[in-house]
Amino acid sequence: MPNPTAAMLVIGDEILSGRTRDSNMHHLAGRLTEHGIDLVEARVVADRAEAITEAARALSVAYDHVFTSGGIGPTHDDITADCIAAAGDAAIDVREDARAILQAHYDARGSELNEARLRMARIPDGAVLIENPVSAAPGFTLGNIHVMAGVPKIFEAMLAGLLPRLKGGAPMQSRQIRVDRGEGDIAGPLSEVARAHPEISVGSYPFTTEDGFGVNVVIRGSDPAALDAAMEKLRGHFPEGRE
Amino acid sequence: MPNPTAAMLVIGDEILSGRTRDSNMHHLAGRLTEHGIDLVEARVVADRAEAITEAARALSVAYDHVFTSGGIGPTHDDITADCIAAAGDAAIDVREDARAILQAHYDARGSELNEARLRMARIPDGAVLIENPVSAAPGFTLGNIHVMAGVPKIFEAMLAGLLPRLKGGAPMQSRQIRVDRGEGDIAGPLSEVARAHPEISVGSYPFTTEDGFGVNVVIRGSDPAALDAAMEKLRGHFPEGRE
Repeated sequence: MPNPTAAMLVIGDEILSGRTRDSNMHHLAGRLTEHGIDLVEARVVADRAEAITEAARALSVAYDHVFTSGGIGPTHDDITADCIAAAGDAAIDVREDARAILQAHYDARGSELNEARLRMARIPDGAVLIENPVSAAPGFTLGNIHVMAGVPKIFEAMLAGLLPRLKGGAPMQSRQIRVDRGEGDIAGPLSEVARAHPEISVGSYPFTTEDGFGVNVVIRGSDPAALDAAMEKLRGHFPEGRE
Repeated sequence: MPNPTAAMLVIGDEILSGRTRDSNMHHLAGRLTEHGIDLVEARVVADRAEAITEAARALSVAYDHVFTSGGIGPTHDDITADCIAAAGDAAIDVREDARAILQAHYDARGSELNEARLRMARIPDGAVLIENPVSAAPGFTLGNIHVMAGVPKIFEAMLAGLLPRLKGGAPMQSRQIRVDRGEGDIAGPLSEVARAHPEISVGSYPFTTEDGFGVNVVIRGSDPAALDAAMEKLRGHFPEGRE
């Protein structure tokens, strides 16, 4: 059975303006690979309602899971929850379970659960909360869309809590061999190996160092025996390769 | 007149598997902001022909410019040029101008322009070449799609050569003020400033340090006078703020 598929939707003007460099995509990619869920596509959109809703809807139809990051804080540009509710045709309002979590959090700190903060308790009907062990305000899962915070520490903590709930497939594994030749010199053999093992992805990643250049050849797949067989062929083609 | 709009299309399994962390998106975002082109969306897709062609076509229709990175090397998984040709309904084959560039490059190094490397001379009919000062193999512009390499050093060099050809608008500028309070405490005033200055984007970026927490408030826009006026209001709301 093929692995479940997933897309990521990163929400935030700050990524597209170059102010902030996204790190959640890279983190999610690694965790999903370990969990046996294939990340197939990622999109970054600005803090505009129509863009968020349309992308969420399109990705939700196309993939088994959609993971979003960003736009669930207390300020005017935090509109993700309402957009996901719209994408899922769900009603949304302040929900008592989320309000109770926030109330307890701010009470414990002597802070006020003011109107702005209360926006973070807006959760679509039918959604399941995702715990936020860092700053309390929860994420949520609505249908196959998992809504999480943009701050990396919070995104990572939410994902750690969420992933065990999701059924994974066979974890993708990889093997690597480094060949100190030009990519154009090894393209023929690589192509042969890729053709012989259609169940495996064969990637080549050229690099330069101060001393010269080379290629890291990476093969990926969920069947260890197939990976071993392909690796054997690569060793035959590149006896000088380093693993 | 509003600034030209743009999307980025990142092509590569290695980003989605978590093996490689993309850096071209962040670089492009910064350069486009300086040049007065608004990056509105970004997508990352795998090395699959249908995914690349469909995304390129959709983005090309929706925005003034599309910038792609990745998939133009000599190996079997480098299929971007053919996919962009398909998206633009252009024929594609080895083109003499590109072949001459590669021939000169490999002749100078005593390397062979073999069949694999010759694939890098496949350029769609009607495309304009983008110079590659690092490793010779050119990118190209077909219609409003600019096709560049994935290796960051090459991507950045190609972009530096390309950007002066593209008409930019008013460069986006930003101002920043740091407020050592919780985001929920300043959301009200921020919302007021955002409403009063619809031509400006008002973003808030919470952070934590070892000593506590705070928010960086960033306003962005292309009209310096409007930015100054909004900044004055922020100073009134947050007299303790640091710029």
